[in-house]
Amino acid sequence: MKTRTIEWQNGTVVTIDQAKLPHEKVVLGLKNCEEVAEAIKTMKIRGAPLLGAAAAYALALTAYHSKAKSREELISELEKAAETVRGTRPTAVNLFWAIDRILVKAKNYSGDAKALSAFVLEEAQKIADEDATANRSIGKYGAALISDGDVVLTHCNAGALATVEYGTALGVVRASWEQGKKIRVIATETRPKLQGARLTTYELKKDGIPVTLIADSAVGYLMHKRLIDKVVVGADRIVRDAVINKIGTFAIAVLAKEHGIPFYVAAPKSTFDLKRTSANTVVEERKSEEITHIGSHRIAPEDVDIINPAFDMTPLKYVSAIICESGILYKADFNKLKASLGFK
Amino acid sequence: MKTRTIEWQNGTVVTIDQAKLPHEKVVLGLKNCEEVAEAIKTMKIRGAPLLGAAAAYALALTAYHSKAKSREELISELEKAAETVRGTRPTAVNLFWAIDRILVKAKNYSGDAKALSAFVLEEAQKIADEDATANRSIGKYGAALISDGDVVLTHCNAGALATVEYGTALGVVRASWEQGKKIRVIATETRPKLQGARLTTYELKKDGIPVTLIADSAVGYLMHKRLIDKVVVGADRIVRDAVINKIGTFAIAVLAKEHGIPFYVAAPKSTFDLKRTSANTVVEERKSEEITHIGSHRIAPEDVDIINPAFDMTPLKYVSAIICESGILYKADFNKLKASLGFK
Repeated sequence: MKTRTIEWQNGTVVTIDQAKLPHEKVVLGLKNCEEVAEAIKTMKIRGAPLLGAAAAYALALTAYHSKAKSREELISELEKAAETVRGTRPTAVNLFWAIDRILVKAKNYSGDAKALSAFVLEEAQKIADEDATANRSIGKYGAALISDGDVVLTHCNAGALATVEYGTALGVVRASWEQGKKIRVIATETRPKLQGARLTTYELKKDGIPVTLIADSAVGYLMHKRLIDKVVVGADRIVRDAVINKIGTFAIAVLAKEHGIPFYVAAPKSTFDLKRTSANTVVEERKSEEITHIGSHRIAPEDVDIINPAFDMTPLKYVSAIICESGILYKADFNKLKASLGFK
Repeated sequence: MKTRTIEWQNGTVVTIDQAKLPHEKVVLGLKNCEEVAEAIKTMKIRGAPLLGAAAAYALALTAYHSKAKSREELISELEKAAETVRGTRPTAVNLFWAIDRILVKAKNYSGDAKALSAFVLEEAQKIADEDATANRSIGKYGAALISDGDVVLTHCNAGALATVEYGTALGVVRASWEQGKKIRVIATETRPKLQGARLTTYELKKDGIPVTLIADSAVGYLMHKRLIDKVVVGADRIVRDAVINKIGTFAIAVLAKEHGIPFYVAAPKSTFDLKRTSANTVVEERKSEEITHIGSHRIAPEDVDIINPAFDMTPLKYVSAIICESGILYKADFNKLKASLGFK
């Protein structure tokens, strides 16, 4: 992708309607916090790092268009906007992280309403810029783990579309490719929302990186046949004991361990939530129609009972390394990392 | 199901078009071997034990409608029909087993063309009857492994629709339910052909057995949350070192082992192929459209590369027990079984 997945353009947040990809590329111009929240809820925009930037921009929209007369009034509007955005999707922590970062800074800021509004926009831009930079670093560090000729499995979409640009897991793929490594990607289709079939294949084909699409259930067979060398996935939240990511990640991690295949997680530090463990993290349960239907096409009988968790938890023991913008954290470093981020 | 999934009715093989379920129940009347072969190829009929009965009936149709004047002429027609049916799908062994059984018996039969024709039909009926009986036995033996209150995960459809009646894995579920055990079934949707979403839910709802549908990728999450007590699946072919079954079975078996959950395979002895190992078994690779499309709805970009194996291999070390019509074969018995079937 040459341009960013999300951008600020004169009081509008410009992004792509990912629910319509790969069939149509529809550009959305989101004009206020409610429109951003709606786009997140309906998964027109998705991907943990992108949700961080989107949440930041949602507050920037509120600040930018505010008619507040005082600093206090604007802060109260920002708090209301924060509540709206927080109520969209519970699992990706980047969204909460970005909101908290802006709110804390806004509250500590001493200027008037107009200056504060400019400050909030500036901070949102910073969050977006930092994500773009983080992904390049993740790519650079991660590429050191990828060898010429590797077949790399990825799940869901942790690409440019899931971030401000470049991608986390696909950032590692892109950096490897840019270094001239002749790699191939296996993309799982990622039921129910098919981010792998729709988005990962679309992104990689655009960049000319070889990609093969499989059903989620074919991962075991391919590993058994030694057709996969490495796994690289993104993350929605990294807690003290687990990586929380798209449903199906855990099965891939268990299969990778069983076959001695390295399992890497690529995610910026805004995804880390080390105050928490998996036991006290909310896993979003999404609506039944995602399973009973594909698009508007019903596949299951009427009135069938459904369980549809959007994410699962992969205990850290299955994770070979976490690739973040500060470097590669191997198993032995996980505790060091916790310490370096100020947690015991 | 009160009636059989496949039946002989005066020179026609009557069965259900499973590709149209659960939306429409269309009854097919197949009039010759070619029509049966076409129904198998297009997966209007599917399920290893059902394919055994269908293959047998395909030869019965050839014999019944034959104008052959001599025993030799009829045998040559049967051999041609056998080739047609063998060319449909390579993995489910029951199909080859049924054909071989009928051909060997036909060749050893000494009557004239008319008598041989009647004999072939009789043998096909026997194969169908035996499958019905085997499934009741599998159900009875398997139910001993299922406790009141168990949540049983199954993959794909190994039910009445996959057999002549009652089912193998779902035979175990049905027998448990008939014994008054308050069990619940978790059905995986089973991409790409969605046999779990379309057929298993349909069958179980008809029988009033509680069933919950999940994406294939949600198995790990449910096991991690201790929401699954047992796994029971069918098989397309059991070889010396592995159970070959619907793609995704292997991942479920690995996850079950990782969580200490019993993993049972329910299959009649016609599924056993102990001359062979997984290394020399053909795993059918099906067409790309099963992955790029759902129904007529395209989900992936044009020209994306696909790998679409229909089956995978689960090494026997992951299998807690095999339930067949002769009883329950535990790990320690696998070698005994091989011996009892005449293999070293």
